[in-house]
Amino acid sequence: MTIKSHMKGDVAMNEVRNNILVDEWRIIEKEFDLENNVKNETIFAIANGYIGMRGTFEEGLDKKYSIEGNYINGFYEIHDIKYGEKAYAFPEIGQTMLNVFNPKVIKIKVDDEEFNMMNADILEYERILDLREAVLKRRVVWRTKSGKELEINFERLASFTIKNSAAIRVKIKPINFDGKINVDSLLDADVKNLTAEDDPRVGSGITGRAFEIEKKVIDENYYEIYASTKKSRLKLICSITEDVKNCIILNRKELNDDLKVGFSYEIEAEKGKEFELIKYIVYVNSREYNENDIIKNKEEIIKQVLEYGYDRLREEQIKYVKEFWNRADVEIEGDDFLQQGLRFNIFHILQSTGKDGLTNIGAKGLTGEGYEGHYFWDTEMYIIPLFTYTMPFIARKLLEYRYNTLDKARERAREMSHKNGALYAWRTINGEECSAYFLASTAQYHINADIAYAIKRYYEATDDVDFILNYGAEILFETARIFVDLGHYVEGKGFCLDGVTGPDEYTAMVNNNAYTNIMAKEHLSFAYEIAKMLKDKYIEKYEALKQKINLNDNELDEWIRAADNMYIPYDEKLKIHPQDDTFLNKKIWDFENTPKDKYPLLLHYHPLVIYRHQVCKQADWVLALFLHSEKFSKEQKKRDYDYYERVTTHDSSLSPCIFSIVACDIGYKDKAYDYFMRTARMDLDDHHGNTKDGIHAANMAGSWMGIVFGFGGFRVYKEKIKFNPIIPDKWKKYSFRVNCKGRLIKVEVEKNLVRLSLLEGEDIKVDVYDNPIILSKNKDVEVIKVQM
Amino acid sequence: MTIKSHMKGDVAMNEVRNNILVDEWRIIEKEFDLENNVKNETIFAIANGYIGMRGTFEEGLDKKYSIEGNYINGFYEIHDIKYGEKAYAFPEIGQTMLNVFNPKVIKIKVDDEEFNMMNADILEYERILDLREAVLKRRVVWRTKSGKELEINFERLASFTIKNSAAIRVKIKPINFDGKINVDSLLDADVKNLTAEDDPRVGSGITGRAFEIEKKVIDENYYEIYASTKKSRLKLICSITEDVKNCIILNRKELNDDLKVGFSYEIEAEKGKEFELIKYIVYVNSREYNENDIIKNKEEIIKQVLEYGYDRLREEQIKYVKEFWNRADVEIEGDDFLQQGLRFNIFHILQSTGKDGLTNIGAKGLTGEGYEGHYFWDTEMYIIPLFTYTMPFIARKLLEYRYNTLDKARERAREMSHKNGALYAWRTINGEECSAYFLASTAQYHINADIAYAIKRYYEATDDVDFILNYGAEILFETARIFVDLGHYVEGKGFCLDGVTGPDEYTAMVNNNAYTNIMAKEHLSFAYEIAKMLKDKYIEKYEALKQKINLNDNELDEWIRAADNMYIPYDEKLKIHPQDDTFLNKKIWDFENTPKDKYPLLLHYHPLVIYRHQVCKQADWVLALFLHSEKFSKEQKKRDYDYYERVTTHDSSLSPCIFSIVACDIGYKDKAYDYFMRTARMDLDDHHGNTKDGIHAANMAGSWMGIVFGFGGFRVYKEKIKFNPIIPDKWKKYSFRVNCKGRLIKVEVEKNLVRLSLLEGEDIKVDVYDNPIILSKNKDVEVIKVQM
Repeated sequence: MTIKSHMKGDVAMNEVRNNILVDEWRIIEKEFDLENNVKNETIFAIANGYIGMRGTFEEGLDKKYSIEGNYINGFYEIHDIKYGEKAYAFPEIGQTMLNVFNPKVIKIKVDDEEFNMMNADILEYERILDLREAVLKRRVVWRTKSGKELEINFERLASFTIKNSAAIRVKIKPINFDGKINVDSLLDADVKNLTAEDDPRVGSGITGRAFEIEKKVIDENYYEIYASTKKSRLKLICSITEDVKNCIILNRKELNDDLKVGFSYEIEAEKGKEFELIKYIVYVNSREYNENDIIKNKEEIIKQVLEYGYDRLREEQIKYVKEFWNRADVEIEGDDFLQQGLRFNIFHILQSTGKDGLTNIGAKGLTGEGYEGHYFWDTEMYIIPLFTYTMPFIARKLLEYRYNTLDKARERAREMSHKNGALYAWRTINGEECSAYFLASTAQYHINADIAYAIKRYYEATDDVDFILNYGAEILFETARIFVDLGHYVEGKGFCLDGVTGPDEYTAMVNNNAYTNIMAKEHLSFAYEIAKMLKDKYIEKYEALKQKINLNDNELDEWIRAADNMYIPYDEKLKIHPQDDTFLNKKIWDFENTPKDKYPLLLHYHPLVIYRHQVCKQADWVLALFLHSEKFSKEQKKRDYDYYERVTTHDSSLSPCIFSIVACDIGYKDKAYDYFMRTARMDLDDHHGNTKDGIHAANMAGSWMGIVFGFGGFRVYKEKIKFNPIIPDKWKKYSFRVNCKGRLIKVEVEKNLVRLSLLEGEDIKVDVYDNPIILSKNKDVEVIKVQM
Repeated sequence: MTIKSHMKGDVAMNEVRNNILVDEWRIIEKEFDLENNVKNETIFAIANGYIGMRGTFEEGLDKKYSIEGNYINGFYEIHDIKYGEKAYAFPEIGQTMLNVFNPKVIKIKVDDEEFNMMNADILEYERILDLREAVLKRRVVWRTKSGKELEINFERLASFTIKNSAAIRVKIKPINFDGKINVDSLLDADVKNLTAEDDPRVGSGITGRAFEIEKKVIDENYYEIYASTKKSRLKLICSITEDVKNCIILNRKELNDDLKVGFSYEIEAEKGKEFELIKYIVYVNSREYNENDIIKNKEEIIKQVLEYGYDRLREEQIKYVKEFWNRADVEIEGDDFLQQGLRFNIFHILQSTGKDGLTNIGAKGLTGEGYEGHYFWDTEMYIIPLFTYTMPFIARKLLEYRYNTLDKARERAREMSHKNGALYAWRTINGEECSAYFLASTAQYHINADIAYAIKRYYEATDDVDFILNYGAEILFETARIFVDLGHYVEGKGFCLDGVTGPDEYTAMVNNNAYTNIMAKEHLSFAYEIAKMLKDKYIEKYEALKQKINLNDNELDEWIRAADNMYIPYDEKLKIHPQDDTFLNKKIWDFENTPKDKYPLLLHYHPLVIYRHQVCKQADWVLALFLHSEKFSKEQKKRDYDYYERVTTHDSSLSPCIFSIVACDIGYKDKAYDYFMRTARMDLDDHHGNTKDGIHAANMAGSWMGIVFGFGGFRVYKEKIKFNPIIPDKWKKYSFRVNCKGRLIKVEVEKNLVRLSLLEGEDIKVDVYDNPIILSKNKDVEVIKVQM
């Protein structure tokens, strides 16, 4: 199957990798690549954190080459989780982000010949995701069998300004003929999630159609479907308003069958004259509005969208993204592939992240059905840092989501026999634990401390006391309680946490996972600090909170006692931190005799085989070395790093970025570069072969972290802002921006020069290579020697 | 609901517990106990190790009060095992022992009134399981609404002599009338296994009818159903031949609907004259005969059964059981409840055990659907000892079953990434692993060593070299290989086995489970010994076996090196054996604040909560203290016992008997008695509340072990046979028999006297309280002082 392509248009001819043109700000496909199209539908996905639309074609495509997907963040159906052998408190109900009604459908017909990318004679083609505009464009020139030629320009966006809305505009121009063109525009409810039969690794427990359609409406220039999910009983309304311009409509029919609704236009087209159809799409659901308000809100949103119109929506989009890039952009000189990959990653994080406090970011964003759309610790450890230091109000919204699911975490803690406190779900949409394999989920108690860590860093970066008072303290206290209940004192060791799994999922259910213990230590002492701060400064708030969660002052003493006595395993002989109490006693995996095709190990070895060896799927203690880099000497970090690097497979996409960051920290410049390069284009180049199921969001944010925390050596500890930049040999220059304590700082790094500019905010002291430097607006500071 | 009872007949009036009369040799129900009937159907089950029939009534009973069940050992249907999250080498196919066609149905009608236990006017009733006869009897006197009275005597047996056969005889006598009696006799294929809806804890993955009926036959005096299972594609034929005697048959109709086949008799009955109907039941299946031979074999079996006739079947039955009791009986003077319980237990073990080398014994015998009819390590650790020292040819057959499934164990070892060797399934029927929860199944690598241990004890007791040459050595060598591959040497410790679960299922996936390590040590050195013995004496056999399993002589050295260096954890401070590397570091379960209704813990706490505490479901290291009692001093055993007793819940029915045995060994007489008393009537008195789902076979055999190994202090180590009897204060006297090295020895223990009699075999030296004594036939030896 080949589609001819014609390299025309305004795109500068650059290098091509996997049929994607290299360009600083755009992802460009100039040749339609049918075989890679399912992957590219992920790449070209458009989303705004609420609505996500895979980069599928308006006219559709054979299922073999396409996964049609439209998702609403936080909108899910439930299903029974099956177990061969069930035990107490195993989660019984799974949640799956639903594939919702497809609003994209636009079918163009000339002389009863229907346009589509598989069979039509396509003279010109390009598909562009523009990262400065946040729109997806497609331009085709189509020649019908009878020789009629049309230029068609599709464009779509999911609005960052009005989160419930998206819009599609198609412009059609008959190049060499006058006459009739038929356009059908539809909302299609004939949608299903992938099942195990479609894909055993992705398919969820949802089979068949998840919706009951309650009502369909067609009126004037709009049509709507009202529906409820069959089991979770959530309501969804999708409303589409259409505007057809610059043409004579000969006829407009309503289309209304069982599962589809829309209009069919017969248009009198004129040679050389472009006409357009705009679809204004609005989704609302009962997780954001209660049932009484949902219709009213829908009406208001539609009104606002129509007031804006397409052009204003597009302008607002550009404005929003511009502001984002002003804070989040990363520039690389000397590697265009990398430049493209990094911006692509950062952009997809912005697209995928829920920003309303009710939703979060799935492991695959809103781009595919992998991991059933679930939220994980990835949010706190990989995504939030990006927002904390660029657009902290989004970081706050992600943390508010945790607050909004705190009751579910309390319920889960009771199920897990904790007398008080809250234990967050390992994977979830609505806050309830959805994981069916507790060794790599419920056992990962570190999620509580990960959330606390993100709060701490957010608070240090923003001084957002309001957040602490209204949300943060309650989360911190409730989650801290779990560690006190979980742990116990062991003579000669200290406070021990047994029966947990750390981040490394190739080791499970151990005592004293070093990562978990150090994170819990930090968590408990931060909770104690915050409690003291409240007591000192906000005694009324503190008393109210104490009463609300039935907190006893003695508990605070328990927190700090546990923190002070937390046992962090250390091997005196090897002078390294063992991953847990028994890790170093296990047999080292026989890497030498493991053929390449046996990776990732989890697909080729029973968990027991993996668990009984020294082998890590991902950074575990090495992640702690990053998160707590101030606590260890460089020599210590090197010994730990050297040890764990030898036994880590990086079978998790969360791993290489962390190894890159720590390599920067300890001066392993080549390793830092190599690991970093595995992250930057992981999805663009489909390194893991499963980008079709959605982006690897954590890795994407990890590549941003690799620049900022890794090469840039950026850290914020309490009052200190530190930079320790290094630059890989292959780059001429790179730059990044960070927003911290109300300042926006730009950092440019060249071979022998670091330039810091304060773009926003008051003068501030920062440390560069541990030397204090004062930054002022309009006064760049240059440091001459880039150290290594 | 009450049924009047009339205490008549030949049964001596004794004490009653749970409506079961206490009697030395019989289980007697004199009042029909509707509420406890489902449990009693298990109690009154009849089986011969091949056919098992729950003690249901021929005429049927409301499903609410009855679980109709007829089982063929080893005959199963398969189903997909569901996982919320599946991983590599998780078993995908489950097996369930099928509820097969019900051959029992006999419906008796007078004047269109049908006899049944719920609505009929029952003047007299008794149900008796006679342990000396191995038949189940039921006698009722029924008065019809019109005042007609009938005495009905049912009797059924499953033949120990012709394993494929069972028989039912019903004798009917009109007491006060002449006239017509209708009798329908059927084979009913309208059968299903329990589903999760019937009982979530018992229901298997089999839903709906598992059979496709291929053929039904009615001819002369017999009827048959030929069927195949839908998924496992196993064939089953059930054939019933009928004989009606001592009456005039007015009419005989064939009954043949979709799922039922049989005869309907109209009989001219005469007052005071008893007539009888006999059903000769034969089952054959394609797991024992290949498809070409199955019909021929069925015919031959039927021929033999009919040649025997009912009376001879019954005589043979009595003869067989008499011989069994001659070897296996245990007598208690001073506690009739206990006497009854013990014989009941021993009898059920005989009934439940497959004796053909193709089948084994399910955890619930052939009496119910609990655990899906699966075979576990229970066989080697609990059941085989009983047979090894009573009827060793049955022990051999159980071990031959392991040989016959060795290929499946080899396949499983490959799935578990072992380069050679065989790993037995934790739960199975056909040898394939069926467990869906690997932490408490596949991780229990000790099953390999348990089988080796049973072989060693069997071989020491019987000197059965033939077994070793043809079966045992190959099993031993293949299973030994797994431990060498599993383990590794750790400096300062020795040979370590990581990532296993021991017998205690409240602790999972640990390093160096002490039980597993000591069992593996014994296993490896025994395999080495046997290999040397073969090399010395049977070099040709040895060479052939080496070639067959591709064994290298170096491997033998690895076995003995691993055995010699096996690490057995020991805590120098507490001077006890820790259950594993980390057990003693865990928090001790808060028993004090655990209410009674939270036991068994597994039904009230998530596994993670249980696993992270020091708490044992059952004997783990304490079992090792029994199995290896010669290796430890009494003081050591006491310290270990004291420690583990404090943290053991005995939530497993496999636990109390072991604690009793070890208590005997170390002189804890009261504890020994208390634990023993929890075992003896566990099913008769339904201690666990789930006897309805089947007997607790391991516990039943455990109560025999409690007498023989516990109070009797019987052990066989190589050439030594030892007795160290003690007697509980409450008993006047007890006695037991053991068969060992070709001798049958009877041991009687009174308060101050031990009497040993050699009933069969040549003179032999035994140790009583470590004093050597020579036993000769016809010359009892008395030892005056019973020590404690």
